[in-house]
Amino acid sequence: MTVEIICVGTEILLGNIVNTNAAFLAEKCAGLGLSCYYQSVVGDNEERLTGVIKTAIDRSDVVILSGGLGPTEDDLTKEVACKVLGVDMVSDESVKEDIREYFVKKNLTLTDNNWKQAMVPVGGIVVKNNNGTAPGIIIEKENVKVILLPGPPIELTAMFNESIAPYLNTLTPSVIVSQTVKLCGISESLAETKVKDLIDTQTNPTIATYAKTGEVHIRVTASEENDKACKKLIKPIVKELKERFGNNVYTTDEDVTMERAVVELLEANDLTISCAESCTGGMVSARLINVPGASEVLKVGYVTYSNKAKRKNLGVKKSTLQKHGAVSKETATEMVKGLETTSKADVCIGITGIAGPDGGTESKPVGLVYIACSVKGKTTVEKYNFSGNRAKIRESATSAALVLCRRCILEYFSKVTFGQPD
Amino acid sequence: MTVEIICVGTEILLGNIVNTNAAFLAEKCAGLGLSCYYQSVVGDNEERLTGVIKTAIDRSDVVILSGGLGPTEDDLTKEVACKVLGVDMVSDESVKEDIREYFVKKNLTLTDNNWKQAMVPVGGIVVKNNNGTAPGIIIEKENVKVILLPGPPIELTAMFNESIAPYLNTLTPSVIVSQTVKLCGISESLAETKVKDLIDTQTNPTIATYAKTGEVHIRVTASEENDKACKKLIKPIVKELKERFGNNVYTTDEDVTMERAVVELLEANDLTISCAESCTGGMVSARLINVPGASEVLKVGYVTYSNKAKRKNLGVKKSTLQKHGAVSKETATEMVKGLETTSKADVCIGITGIAGPDGGTESKPVGLVYIACSVKGKTTVEKYNFSGNRAKIRESATSAALVLCRRCILEYFSKVTFGQPD
Repeated sequence: MTVEIICVGTEILLGNIVNTNAAFLAEKCAGLGLSCYYQSVVGDNEERLTGVIKTAIDRSDVVILSGGLGPTEDDLTKEVACKVLGVDMVSDESVKEDIREYFVKKNLTLTDNNWKQAMVPVGGIVVKNNNGTAPGIIIEKENVKVILLPGPPIELTAMFNESIAPYLNTLTPSVIVSQTVKLCGISESLAETKVKDLIDTQTNPTIATYAKTGEVHIRVTASEENDKACKKLIKPIVKELKERFGNNVYTTDEDVTMERAVVELLEANDLTISCAESCTGGMVSARLINVPGASEVLKVGYVTYSNKAKRKNLGVKKSTLQKHGAVSKETATEMVKGLETTSKADVCIGITGIAGPDGGTESKPVGLVYIACSVKGKTTVEKYNFSGNRAKIRESATSAALVLCRRCILEYFSKVTFGQPD
Repeated sequence: MTVEIICVGTEILLGNIVNTNAAFLAEKCAGLGLSCYYQSVVGDNEERLTGVIKTAIDRSDVVILSGGLGPTEDDLTKEVACKVLGVDMVSDESVKEDIREYFVKKNLTLTDNNWKQAMVPVGGIVVKNNNGTAPGIIIEKENVKVILLPGPPIELTAMFNESIAPYLNTLTPSVIVSQTVKLCGISESLAETKVKDLIDTQTNPTIATYAKTGEVHIRVTASEENDKACKKLIKPIVKELKERFGNNVYTTDEDVTMERAVVELLEANDLTISCAESCTGGMVSARLINVPGASEVLKVGYVTYSNKAKRKNLGVKKSTLQKHGAVSKETATEMVKGLETTSKADVCIGITGIAGPDGGTESKPVGLVYIACSVKGKTTVEKYNFSGNRAKIRESATSAALVLCRRCILEYFSKVTFGQPD
């Protein structure tokens, strides 16, 4: 069964707001086993809205519209949907009562245009709005169900969870379940090459790769009659992927980010961590603190962007900075050694690089970054050449630091050398 | 001239990611004077993508597609767009060279599927991607221009700003010029109320407000036959806005971000800054280091997420933490006082708060954040109650710290008190 999402609103077309309603509805519908092939955004314009709705009801089984149910003249969604579907509207006494109650409760002044919201399609299902005045509407035709939801996210999400999800659940026989295998230290194209045979031969579950900064995610998605049957299809594929990618797999849990994987690895090995950052300027610490409870493992973070701060806070030698420069293997190493001494953390990370746009030279171009990581005194230093603008280089360096940190901890405990990531 | 935005990607259809590319492109196009009536999202499926592109080129003057330019088999956007437009593809040697260079620089393994990205439409305009391997493509037909952009936001935004915006500007006979007045310390609804009369009466230039985290941007857009005529229309409106919003205006320069405004304010007053961050965990330092050359003003940043780190690195008293808690006015103040002593910076910022999801109580709920800022020893502490999830609260606190920092510096030098922001 297919679903299509249409969000109505000039503020989305102008880019004033990000369309979080579409993302919410899409994720929920996927979880309910509905296939979403199209999303659209259109303004409060009768002709264009008519066209978009007509196209949608011709090609999809369920059409969900959000927005345009307000009391003002601009709000056209219900009127246009009813016109396209050839359904009359009638004033609903119980909706009128709800609106009256809402205004009394909120101590607001009720104006005549509010009664527009009490008009409902004949034979339609009226869905109570517990967070506003515009009720939701479900119109059932032979080949298509059209669902109208209010635009404000707080009203839409609550109404969807309370009433629309249970309604949709009655429509489909199958459910969709997906699992993500998250990789680090490998490029998207190499990852894809390694699973091309699986991608080409698999139809259920399907396999798709997604590139993230410093990571590749492989999503395995199954469609079956129930959750258990989906998981049974997914399990052998995930096992196969884990075998093919070995230590490049950092998690198979949707909720686990790279930083959470690092924090969990630290916790599991009873380790503390400290960071000394130059070009990334706090971004590695900030990533670690994305994880609630990171205070248990993160001892301290230093942002030492200037040479003075590197000397004063980390004890980097003046002679090292003069001889090798702030962006060098030697400086990264001394940052980590100083951090070990001052913070007494088990794992120490030091990052120094040239994020640009200025400051690059032929021998030390913009994008050159050295990352040192020590685990209980055993130090590894890697050299990277990142491309992109200042923001991209810093984001790449931050991800690389987390990946290197994971690698160094694993190597330390397994006594296995991973080698340079590709 | 009309523009239509099509974002290609299963991730968006499944609701795995929020479609920020559409919002970015929509806002930029509006700023360039293009009317956007439709946005669509479609997956990597030849038939459906073909349908969506056909519909778009029939009804819009410019069609911008994002995503689906990667090296994998999934990625179909370029191939389908060329097929629909009846344009052949050819391998481009200069793109090949760029890709080779990118892989060498990144020390990544180049696989055969990468050459797919070097295929370009005959007669098309190839747009260099400085942040990735997929070049942008512009295909010009009589009635329509089709623009293909890479999906990763960091690549798309940079390419749009560098190459696509100037290109789009050449398409319209009239020149569109816009200027943004950036405000801080004011809510969007209050800002809008204050300019409602201007918004309602102005047609050229138009005035629109955009809410950002901790900021409100007001864009003034004029359409005239040349640059000079546009600027003449914009000038009195910007002057009026500056008068109405006073010190809430932190810049009227598109390129100046809040962090750059702070760094420039520090430079102009010959001041240095240091940061001590708990819940924001390095994000304020990282924002300051977004500005190239921030090493001149940023002395040091401390990430002191644990109580131990606050005591050891900043000298926060054990008794203060016990009596008032880590999230308190007293702790924020002592963080700043300790930072003054250890870093000797002119301006010191201390942030402590509860980012959640756990750790909140009735008297100290999730979202409670204290930010202290001292300028040459004069300390101001503000209490905030932010809403949203952990990421949103930390982002809000980071922005608030920069806004408070600006306010404290201005107050110190002007001897004017701003009062609590609304």
